[in-house]
Amino acid sequence: MILIHTPAPREVAAYLDLFRTALPQHVFTDLEGLSRPEDVEYVITWGPPPGLFVGMSRLKGVFNLGAGVDRLLQRDDLAAEVPIYRLLDGGMAQQMVEYVRYGVLGYQRHMDIYRRQQTAGVWKMLPPRLPAAVRVGVLGLGEIGGQVARALAADGYRVQGWSRSAHTLPGILCHHGPTGLDTVLNESDVLVCVLPSTPQTRGLLDATRLARLPPGAMVINAGRGDLLDLDALQGLLESGHLRAAQLDVFPEEPLPPAHPLWRHPAVTITPHVAAITLRQEAVEQISANLRRLAEGSEPLGKVARTQGY
Amino acid sequence: MILIHTPAPREVAAYLDLFRTALPQHVFTDLEGLSRPEDVEYVITWGPPPGLFVGMSRLKGVFNLGAGVDRLLQRDDLAAEVPIYRLLDGGMAQQMVEYVRYGVLGYQRHMDIYRRQQTAGVWKMLPPRLPAAVRVGVLGLGEIGGQVARALAADGYRVQGWSRSAHTLPGILCHHGPTGLDTVLNESDVLVCVLPSTPQTRGLLDATRLARLPPGAMVINAGRGDLLDLDALQGLLESGHLRAAQLDVFPEEPLPPAHPLWRHPAVTITPHVAAITLRQEAVEQISANLRRLAEGSEPLGKVARTQGY
Ligand SMILES: NC(=O)c1ccc[n+]([C@@H]2O[C@H](COP(=O)([O-])OP(=O)(O)OC[C@H]3O[C@@H](n4cnc5c(N)ncnc54)[C@H](OP(=O)(O)O)[C@@H]3O)[C@@H](O)[C@H]2O)c1
Ligand SMILES: NC(=O)c1ccc[n+]([C@@H]2O[C@H](COP(=O)([O-])OP(=O)(O)OC[C@H]3O[C@@H](n4cnc5c(N)ncnc54)[C@H](OP(=O)(O)O)[C@@H]3O)[C@@H](O)[C@H]2O)c1
Repeated sequence: MILIHTPAPREVAAYLDLFRTALPQHVFTDLEGLSRPEDVEYVITWGPPPGLFVGMSRLKGVFNLGAGVDRLLQRDDLAAEVPIYRLLDGGMAQQMVEYVRYGVLGYQRHMDIYRRQQTAGVWKMLPPRLPAAVRVGVLGLGEIGGQVARALAADGYRVQGWSRSAHTLPGILCHHGPTGLDTVLNESDVLVCVLPSTPQTRGLLDATRLARLPPGAMVINAGRGDLLDLDALQGLLESGHLRAAQLDVFPEEPLPPAHPLWRHPAVTITPHVAAITLRQEAVEQISANLRRLAEGSEPLGKVARTQGY
Repeated sequence: MILIHTPAPREVAAYLDLFRTALPQHVFTDLEGLSRPEDVEYVITWGPPPGLFVGMSRLKGVFNLGAGVDRLLQRDDLAAEVPIYRLLDGGMAQQMVEYVRYGVLGYQRHMDIYRRQQTAGVWKMLPPRLPAAVRVGVLGLGEIGGQVARALAADGYRVQGWSRSAHTLPGILCHHGPTGLDTVLNESDVLVCVLPSTPQTRGLLDATRLARLPPGAMVINAGRGDLLDLDALQGLLESGHLRAAQLDVFPEEPLPPAHPLWRHPAVTITPHVAAITLRQEAVEQISANLRRLAEGSEPLGKVARTQGY
């Protein structure tokens, strides 16, 4: 039996329909229709509530309806032996490209400054800036970050990338490991973070590292909220060292209504929408993986628990 | 003798240097260094003051340091026989692609709505929208508009185009002439105007035509200010029929400080910077044209006076 669970009952109903059509030979259920947790072999889920996996003694795998698995790895009701599979791109990379491109374009073309001038009724041309004059650093070169870096390079920006292991991407200066990071920080007019949240990356963008960014730099965080120290960011925005930030993810989501960043003129806040799981794509990927399991072959997108992503 | 004149003395000095280096066999001068207007054979200019051409009895051509020639065609000191040459792209199309892409991306990804939510401290996801769900109409398929339409189609938007004569562009539904316009207006979620200002196009986007746009549509005008009726636009924004506008050009520039559009929350105003002439590119194109003239061949970018562009 395969359990489908997300926080939205309507969404669960839609997924049930799609999966039953795609894989008529399997039995799918929602939480209401489940009487014995020990019947569950697979769980397809996003944001499972605490205790969801309790009693699932025959659980053989969890399919995450998204790319980031940090919350699945930080819970005590899921045995370490149970494999977790995440979505691979599935239309998310293209959405992330758009989200990041919007921020980088706005920075390159001074749209934030024009917006401020507009509020003051000021008509003043700024010197034009071509993409080649903007250095972008992309932290995370995985399924999503790799495509973001490539798209920005194709747009004409000077792109450097950073990852855990070494990568080779055409037209992109790739760094990896702890020492590579400082170079990227020192030389990025726009810093784009699409890292996963792991024990190694949490708190990575702290006051010291953010201060390495050149004066007037912009920060885009669409990885996870706990990668970036919001107080440090705000301090650097207020001191004028940083010019702008575009943030999609936060340590606490929703960002609390009283948080001062909501009203910061240099900050753009979006409610974790940079790259949303596309239902049809998710069903296709997970169905293909369930078919692979039925045939005895290895599914794609297996999470490396020891690495945390 | 070749006169170089723009409203900015610093810019004139820079152009003098560049042209003297590029074409040492020609004599270039600024207005200060000119004693007899009848010595002038060619003028290289942007925004020439009234009367500049008076007395230039041996004038053989005017090189416009930009794409739009509307102001050159609306003056009485320049004989109709004198050919006018305009810049062809020269890096402007790519800048226009960026300017338009920023507006279309913001519309597609609801960035304007998220900005409004942010002001109110509201965290609310909106349904994701892929590029294929956004219909864009591009008015003007010339040097600049043609590249804008192509780039937006490559980004995945559903693009229709409109021009005076018939065009064929891969992946773009091209219309032309008066009847084609209504179709484009009826079916454009984002209307992009990169037309020149001519007797035929001035006042084109009036209240009736703007009202054809589907509810919730956005207007981007980066052609010329007199193409679009600002009062009509404002009325449709206020009635809620239109959602947003991004405007780079205005009937009067600078837009007067008291104009209500400066403070309209749904309007983005930029000070005529969508696509700026790149000095090096301009010098290359005009030098190549002066060389063509010296060899007795026809320069590129000749303006068709009867058509007004
Ligand atoms: N905001 C949103 O809407 C949204 C949507 C989707 C995803 N996301 C976030 O984006 C993240 C990335 O997604 P993805 O599919 O691209 O993940 P991925 O394919 O697993 O790629 C992760 C990248 O981060 C790098 N990395 C991991 N740990 C690192 C470390 N300690 N030091 C340096 N680099 C490290 C990896 O390096 P290697 O290449 O060497 O392995 C890899 O390049 C997700 O985990 C999620 O948090 C956000
Ligand atoms: N905001 C800025 O910073 C900025 C910068 C550069 C240019 N511009 C503006 O952009 C305009 C276009 O530049 P461009 O280099 O692309 O000019 P272009 O090559 O001359 O192209 C003009 C386009 O408009 C079409 N057109 C002209 N009159 C028309 C009419 N009556 N009905 C329908 N279509 C008509 C033409 O149709 P055909 O193809 O059939 O000839 C052509 O496709 C310039 O004139 C200038 O006003 C603005």
